[in-house]
Amino acid sequence: MQPRIVEVRQGVLKKNDLLARELRARFRDAGVYVVNLVSSPGSGKTALLEATLRGLQPEHRVAALVGDLATDRDAQRLGRSGARVRQITTGTVCHLDAEMLNAALADWDLASLDFLFVENVGNLVCPASYDLGEDLRAVLLSVTEGEDKPLKYPTIFNGADLALITKIDLAAATGFAREEALHNLNEVRPGIEVQETSARTGEGMATWLGRLRELAARRRLSRLGVEATAE
Amino acid sequence: MQPRIVEVRQGVLKKNDLLARELRARFRDAGVYVVNLVSSPGSGKTALLEATLRGLQPEHRVAALVGDLATDRDAQRLGRSGARVRQITTGTVCHLDAEMLNAALADWDLASLDFLFVENVGNLVCPASYDLGEDLRAVLLSVTEGEDKPLKYPTIFNGADLALITKIDLAAATGFAREEALHNLNEVRPGIEVQETSARTGEGMATWLGRLRELAARRRLSRLGVEATAE
Repeated sequence: MQPRIVEVRQGVLKKNDLLARELRARFRDAGVYVVNLVSSPGSGKTALLEATLRGLQPEHRVAALVGDLATDRDAQRLGRSGARVRQITTGTVCHLDAEMLNAALADWDLASLDFLFVENVGNLVCPASYDLGEDLRAVLLSVTEGEDKPLKYPTIFNGADLALITKIDLAAATGFAREEALHNLNEVRPGIEVQETSARTGEGMATWLGRLRELAARRRLSRLGVEATAE
Repeated sequence: MQPRIVEVRQGVLKKNDLLARELRARFRDAGVYVVNLVSSPGSGKTALLEATLRGLQPEHRVAALVGDLATDRDAQRLGRSGARVRQITTGTVCHLDAEMLNAALADWDLASLDFLFVENVGNLVCPASYDLGEDLRAVLLSVTEGEDKPLKYPTIFNGADLALITKIDLAAATGFAREEALHNLNEVRPGIEVQETSARTGEGMATWLGRLRELAARRRLSRLGVEATAE
């Protein structure tokens, strides 16, 4: 309907992809494992991230970038975990992009980190199109949202590496249909890895943290492999 | 950062505003009261709308347009209420615009309707910028989402005429802080009218339906007033 805007957006996306590729190389060189958390507003990204930052410390060195249209509430909340946290305020923009990350990280020593988490703007549409150079894109789906979200917002679920079903302590109260949710996730992203968590009760958190450690360790090994081959 | 895209967007918005103005005049002439429902994905728009369509019938003639990126699940679900329902599938677009409404309504006789509901794409950012010619923009905030959503997504709450706090049957289970939510709503939209509802238990629905009838009646009277003056 508006071909001009589509062309301009494609230009913006191409530029984003190039910068995301640079960021990915930089993250890899620094040995930091980067996780991009995407979901609707209110799916529990901040609560999950707070529990994750606390759970990985002090064993691991962790930090987070947090995207919101307005306020630095999330950064303040996450900062209480002891992790280094920086808020990115997007104004009216419905997603984070590689340039925002690049600017926010300008004065950070990435080699001093084991994990960097990026909490994207709460939105099931726009963040799907912006690669941030992350190693893992995790999409959250809370039990309170409805099991059909993957079918109605297929792009973001299709582009995710892992799905976190959050707020499982509310599964009974909301009448959550687990089989239907899993079926719908597999409909748009066959074989997607699924983890069930509750940041409030802690259920599933040990498994999630263990999986993060495993993925980061595997990435470190593959990096060493690459360097060995290059010598 | 990308001034070109901003310019193009402003052009698109201006075009949308002009068409929205035409739609508003058409709705007014036809005597149909139009409600635009906006919220995050999973706030309960479809459940609220289903209960609203059932509750207003058979006294009133009602219809709905439903926006989603993909699937016609919502239209199928809402159609069971007996109301006329049409799905608008937006592909990758994160909001409905006036042109989509105009196209979807092309073969509808608006004068045969008392209420037309528009269920927007689940998104707390993009729909804020698109006037659809509606009489009432209602923003939903479910008790499961977090009381800080108005502060973090101020534009959409600021642009709404009325806020519906949904899923109040889950208020106790989620530890919903009512006073904080009301405070935050009033922070970004002083004096906003708030209704609390549960589509599941029916709590608050009679008040909400009564308010809709009252608003539609008031609009009809003001329309008659305008016609009387014009004679």
